[in-house]
Amino acid sequence: MSLTIKSHFAYPTYLSFTTKPSRFTGYNTKIRPNSIYHFNPLKLTYYQPKKMQAPVQYSPAPVIKSSLIEPDGGALVDLVVPEGERGAKTIEAESLPKVRLTKIDVEWVHVISEGWANPLKGFMREDEYLQSLHFNSLRLKDGSIVNMSLPIVLAIDDETKERIGSSSHVGLAGPDGDLIAILRSIEIYKHNKEERIARTWGTTAPGLPYVEEVIIPAGNCLIGGDLEVLKPVKYNDGLDHYRLSPKQLRKEFDRRNADAVFAFQLRNPVHNGHALLMNDTRRRLLEMGFKNPILLLHPLGGFTKADDVPLDVRMEQHSKVFPIIPSV
Amino acid sequence: MSLTIKSHFAYPTYLSFTTKPSRFTGYNTKIRPNSIYHFNPLKLTYYQPKKMQAPVQYSPAPVIKSSLIEPDGGALVDLVVPEGERGAKTIEAESLPKVRLTKIDVEWVHVISEGWANPLKGFMREDEYLQSLHFNSLRLKDGSIVNMSLPIVLAIDDETKERIGSSSHVGLAGPDGDLIAILRSIEIYKHNKEERIARTWGTTAPGLPYVEEVIIPAGNCLIGGDLEVLKPVKYNDGLDHYRLSPKQLRKEFDRRNADAVFAFQLRNPVHNGHALLMNDTRRRLLEMGFKNPILLLHPLGGFTKADDVPLDVRMEQHSKVFPIIPSV
Repeated sequence: MSLTIKSHFAYPTYLSFTTKPSRFTGYNTKIRPNSIYHFNPLKLTYYQPKKMQAPVQYSPAPVIKSSLIEPDGGALVDLVVPEGERGAKTIEAESLPKVRLTKIDVEWVHVISEGWANPLKGFMREDEYLQSLHFNSLRLKDGSIVNMSLPIVLAIDDETKERIGSSSHVGLAGPDGDLIAILRSIEIYKHNKEERIARTWGTTAPGLPYVEEVIIPAGNCLIGGDLEVLKPVKYNDGLDHYRLSPKQLRKEFDRRNADAVFAFQLRNPVHNGHALLMNDTRRRLLEMGFKNPILLLHPLGGFTKADDVPLDVRMEQHSKVFPIIPSV
Repeated sequence: MSLTIKSHFAYPTYLSFTTKPSRFTGYNTKIRPNSIYHFNPLKLTYYQPKKMQAPVQYSPAPVIKSSLIEPDGGALVDLVVPEGERGAKTIEAESLPKVRLTKIDVEWVHVISEGWANPLKGFMREDEYLQSLHFNSLRLKDGSIVNMSLPIVLAIDDETKERIGSSSHVGLAGPDGDLIAILRSIEIYKHNKEERIARTWGTTAPGLPYVEEVIIPAGNCLIGGDLEVLKPVKYNDGLDHYRLSPKQLRKEFDRRNADAVFAFQLRNPVHNGHALLMNDTRRRLLEMGFKNPILLLHPLGGFTKADDVPLDVRMEQHSKVFPIIPSV
């Protein structure tokens, strides 16, 4: 079982783009991909419902607007401090004990800060960590339960713990030393790696990349708290304009008057199997009575398998197959 | 972490008895236990609330009757077939492919049949097994969620699976060959032992008794289905009269007009720490305004640690410390 299959959100989130419905209609193309892709030429066909066939009747008819689907736990989390407060918060962050993040830690800051892990407002404290490990869920204050099948935690080593001392807050610095966030009302607790691995993957066998490259080398403590991110996380790799936040995506769905959104998350170049699934889903939504279903194609970046096609190459392929709307 | 700590019900259930309130009041005794117990002489003291001290006020005052606390998932499960149907069901069971149970399997039949694992109505099918493993819970048809942190499953070997063939139902026979139940509308699925162990204990390290003695030697398949038990499970060890079912306990609590029940589950002889906890709980309940809180002392039998004090010795000790009401 891979981490991405178990996760219910875009694990290291990198990119979101949507097809333009006006051009998607009747869309039919062939491309001959470079040999790097290892799959057959694509043929995306758009399903045309038979005019003579009575549409399947569902009762009651679904009335769904994309903007009406609430984020898990209610309000969408947005942990980036307003621009006006950035200066003061940065000065405060500089005065605090520092925790140096890895590249992957920064990706998790990105995930949390934009609400991809709603309703999480920071790296997990122990009560959230244990709920995630044991129940794959979080129980909210109102008694409702949301899926949270992966612990989202920040590991620190003993030396960092020592340096933090009795401070209630810490500054988080990126791999290059730049301050990127404040973690408030912190809680430091034991990083029981074996239990985390066993409960997350259901095995402790060697060979799990995330285990061997991220968890095993990590520190023996976890630090949880509330996150305040000094500015939006960017990667400066020429792909940031594809990385829409949930807030931006919701706005885009509304702008297009989507009455349904169907998402397709993938770690590979698009191939015929994907195309079949996407077309079939769209067909079913139209048959159910939706008028304007919108596809959210959601390629995974960040921590993918070592032999996966690199993100920039995949993006190039996607851009040839789909008409892309880079919205920011 | 031990299995019994993680479980929310009496895992291999053996015994339930309650203290008699009229004699518990002002109860004060000393016993000098046999050296087998490894603890100091007991002194159980009964807390007398100070007459002059105003009782703590809770608002609104709790109005709880033991009989009003619903079993998990609603109605109390009782899977023992009525006496009038026993003959016909036994004949049917004889005609079915048989699964031979171990001693521990029979204890699980006992647990399930009396509703100790409410709302479970048989050994878990795969959907229940996976929910238990991943969510430590079961989601019921009405959307509500109940704790179910241990998979309650029946393992069979490949030869038994072969023998069952396409039969929808099987007969369950005890270690001595006696038919004890029918399992209906069966589902056979893979017994992924490593994942079960990793997710249940959070480790795959050697040395876990239940893992090494029960799971590892078990068959490679699990069989789930609805249970019909031909007659109440008995152990004929001179202790069956202590083994009250949840139904019998509820009746007893009502008969005594209990307005609160506090349970104490233990695997050891009663010692001073236990006594303190029991007395303190009773004191708190009285302070909260309950008039007649009843203690349910719940010794564990079945699969305990190899060096634990044997059940019959513990029962002898309990009987000296508490006035016992053997209710059946």
